[in-house]
Amino acid sequence: IPLSKTVRCTCIKISDRPVNPRSLEKLEMIPASQSCPHVEIIATMKKNGEKRCLNPESKTIKNLLKAISKERSKRSPRTQREA
Amino acid sequence: IPLSKTVRCTCIKISDRPVNPRSLEKLEMIPASQSCPHVEIIATMKKNGEKRCLNPESKTIKNLLKAISKERSKRSPRTQREA
Repeated sequence: IPLSKTVRCTCIKISDRPVNPRSLEKLEMIPASQSCPHVEIIATMKKNGEKRCLNPESKTIKNLLKAISKERSKRSPRTQREA
Repeated sequence: IPLSKTVRCTCIKISDRPVNPRSLEKLEMIPASQSCPHVEIIATMKKNGEKRCLNPESKTIKNLLKAISKERSKRSPRTQREA
């Protein structure tokens, strides 16, 4: 059995549905490797920890990365106003 | 005890050292939330699974994101030449 040729990607199907940045718990990026020939992007949702594979070339992922960075600068750790 | 005010970020110290994209197993991005007021970026290294927190505004992270995407297009799943 040619085990060495087995491709073991994490994602089976890839979603192009938009992801709300506020519903996102975390985003994982797994670079291409010997076990999977393409980059994989996995979004874990806050609600029930659902995992969703995203298309790395989609607008969804570009918007998400932008939103995550913006979120950061909006809530600067030094100038928190929340209670 | 005002437990609700406890900030629980994952990262304690943040590294500005460059990360070789080839040594990277995965990259996690955790958006700002009630438990941590700023975005966190955690790189897991292939070698012994070492985790390293990166500065989201550093060049390191920008270069890394670029490298991961390039890696993908270089090794298109349809045109593998390896073995």
